[in-house]
Amino acid sequence: MSRLEQQLAFICELDKLKEIIRQTQILSGSRRENTAEHSWQLGMMAFVLSEHANEPVDAAHVAKLVLAHDIVEIDAGDTFAYDETGYEDKDAREQAAADRIFGLLPADQAAELRSWWDEFEARETAEAKFAHAIDRVMPLLHNFYNQGGSWQRHGIVLAQTLKRSAEIQDGSQTLYDYTINKLHEAVELGYLDKE
Amino acid sequence: MSRLEQQLAFICELDKLKEIIRQTQILSGSRRENTAEHSWQLGMMAFVLSEHANEPVDAAHVAKLVLAHDIVEIDAGDTFAYDETGYEDKDAREQAAADRIFGLLPADQAAELRSWWDEFEARETAEAKFAHAIDRVMPLLHNFYNQGGSWQRHGIVLAQTLKRSAEIQDGSQTLYDYTINKLHEAVELGYLDKE
Repeated sequence: MSRLEQQLAFICELDKLKEIIRQTQILSGSRRENTAEHSWQLGMMAFVLSEHANEPVDAAHVAKLVLAHDIVEIDAGDTFAYDETGYEDKDAREQAAADRIFGLLPADQAAELRSWWDEFEARETAEAKFAHAIDRVMPLLHNFYNQGGSWQRHGIVLAQTLKRSAEIQDGSQTLYDYTINKLHEAVELGYLDKE
Repeated sequence: MSRLEQQLAFICELDKLKEIIRQTQILSGSRRENTAEHSWQLGMMAFVLSEHANEPVDAAHVAKLVLAHDIVEIDAGDTFAYDETGYEDKDAREQAAADRIFGLLPADQAAELRSWWDEFEARETAEAKFAHAIDRVMPLLHNFYNQGGSWQRHGIVLAQTLKRSAEIQDGSQTLYDYTINKLHEAVELGYLDKE
C-alpha cells in the first residue's frame, strides 16, 4: 500500500468508533451516545475551556489528545466508568488495541498518534490532566440534564460520582468546583441518590 | 451567567449536532451518519492527511476549521450535496445560525469561533481549502465502500460526482487524483451510474 492508502485505511478504520456505544445518553435523552461524537464534543471543549486549566495549556494539543483518546475502544470497547471488573483488564485490552489500530498508519505517524494516546494515559503533562478533566465533566452534565441518566439506570450514588470526579481537580480547579456543586444540586433535585 | 456558564451552555448546545442526520451512511452501512461524528473524523483527517495539502498548512488550524464547520447545521440542517434547491437559501440560513449559536459564547470566543467558520466558508486560506478537500473526500469513500450508498438512493451519476469533487483539487492535488480514480473505479464496479 502507498503511504496515502495506509492513511486512508486508518481513517476508514476510525469509522468503527461511531458504533461504540457509551452508557451516557445524549442531552435530548433520545438514545445513548457513541464514542466518535463524544470525542468531537471534547475537541470543541478543548478549545473553548482551556483557559480554565490549572496550568497554561496548548489548546490544540489538548484537542489532539481528546480526539484520539478513545480510538482504542474500537477493539477494547467502552468500559463503563463504574464497572470495577471491567477495569481489571482494561489496560491490557487497550494496549493491544493501540498496537493494532495506530499500527495501520505509516510508521512515523503511528508513533506520533501513539504518543498522544500514551501521553493521555500517563496523565502527567498539563494537557493530559486537562484532557482527563473535560472527559470527566461532560458525562456528569449529560446525566444531570437527563435527570439522572446512567446514574439512575446503574444505581450510582453520590460518593461514587465524587470519587470519579476527584481527578478533575488535577486538570482544573474551576471545573472541579463547578462539578461538585452540580453533583450536590443533582442530589437535591432527586437525580442522584445520596446513598 | 458567568463566563464558564456561557461556555458550558454553548458546549451543551453542541449536543444537538449529534442529531443532525446526513445522507451518507457510516461504513458498516447500518445507519446514516450524524454531523458530530462526521466532524470528529474530519478532525482526525486534518492531522493525518495535512502533508497532502497543495501548500504547507497548520494541521491544528485545519482541525479547528473542520471541528466547527458544520455547527450551523444545528439550526440550518444538513443540505444534501446534490440538492440544488436547498443550496439557494443555504447561505442565509447558515449565517443566521452562526449568529445565534456562536453568540452563546462570551464575546471574545464568539468572535474567534465565528472567524473559523467565516474562514472555512471563504475558502481562501490554504487551511480552508484543505479543510474543504477532506470534507468532500470522506463521503465519496463512504459511498464507495457502501457499494453506492447515497449515490444509488438519489440517482446520482458520475458527472455530478466529478463536478462536486472539482473543489478537492484546490486543496490537494493528491487527494483529487485519488478521488477521481476511485470514482471511475466505482463506475466499473457498478456502484455509480455513468449517466
